[in-house]
Amino acid sequence: MRRLIEELAQMPGIGARSAERLAFYILKSNRQDALKIADAITAVKENLQHCDSCYNLADTAQCAICADPKRDHTRVLIVEQPKDLIALELTGMYKGLYHVLMGRLSPLDNIAPADLTIAQLLARLDSPKADTPRIEEVILGLNPTVEGDGTALYLADQLRTRRITVSRLARGLPTGGTLEFANKAVLADAILGRQSVD
Amino acid sequence: MRRLIEELAQMPGIGARSAERLAFYILKSNRQDALKIADAITAVKENLQHCDSCYNLADTAQCAICADPKRDHTRVLIVEQPKDLIALELTGMYKGLYHVLMGRLSPLDNIAPADLTIAQLLARLDSPKADTPRIEEVILGLNPTVEGDGTALYLADQLRTRRITVSRLARGLPTGGTLEFANKAVLADAILGRQSVD
Repeated sequence: MRRLIEELAQMPGIGARSAERLAFYILKSNRQDALKIADAITAVKENLQHCDSCYNLADTAQCAICADPKRDHTRVLIVEQPKDLIALELTGMYKGLYHVLMGRLSPLDNIAPADLTIAQLLARLDSPKADTPRIEEVILGLNPTVEGDGTALYLADQLRTRRITVSRLARGLPTGGTLEFANKAVLADAILGRQSVD
Repeated sequence: MRRLIEELAQMPGIGARSAERLAFYILKSNRQDALKIADAITAVKENLQHCDSCYNLADTAQCAICADPKRDHTRVLIVEQPKDLIALELTGMYKGLYHVLMGRLSPLDNIAPADLTIAQLLARLDSPKADTPRIEEVILGLNPTVEGDGTALYLADQLRTRRITVSRLARGLPTGGTLEFANKAVLADAILGRQSVD
């Protein structure tokens, strides 16, 4: 029991008291339920991998998005993490493919281009696998933060010499917000990026 | 003293206890400081008016922005309230003129086009005063809310027949935020409004 509490307490956001509570819950629950939790943990570690082409989470060599023939295989949206991909997928507005960088450039944390899946992205663009159409548009979907912008700038520079349309996710006022409470950077983006109405 | 407390308590966000505290502050402060507060209140009511052309707050018939020859008088940015204008001015990114609607269309609150300064805006566009250049671009800067969008749609429709470029403030990811915590509507705007990088 002490070992279980210690193991649980190692997880982020779970302190000694929470770990104790969880451990007693497991102790009281029936054998089947408890083993289901253990199984799910084991399954994630044994079956979950990264997609060979886009580095999304997958339980086979190719993720469900890359394997879907109905998606637009000529467009690739670049995100930092699988969780960003999940957020974009929930909108249902994007029908192309993704590429997960597995992080962003961060000189302060010693994260350089070689630590991300940038080489793999360029290989995907330059020498597509057989039966894969040429990628025509790359959409930079990094977080609108200092490090995300830096990474986007680096990628745009790498892509410049290739015959590829490079775009980035729109920046501006968040729908549902108000001008009054938007900060200066958001309002400046909204003014500079204004779009024609037709 | 009781009258002062009652008057102060009528203001929004000031309850009976706060009003009492303010009243005692005024009682204790020296005569000059207290009269300065009274003067400022009187001055606002007696001198502050709305600009004749853009309905911004002004202490003369024309506001400082409309009177400034260095601003771009061919562009007008439409906002709901003077406070939106102030937020945009703080960015220093916009050099044109404004038009304050004094609200937004809201059928549920019985606010119709005639309750806003829409007729005055159209007059400004159609028959500019002498010595004023023709307005070439109207930028819709309403709040990105349901009612703001409805008002923008109504205005875009009114402006369609006029030879004027109509644009709207950019909608998308707020700078400094993250994809992970952006809601679906914001992410959908970001995908649909994506911009070319060059």
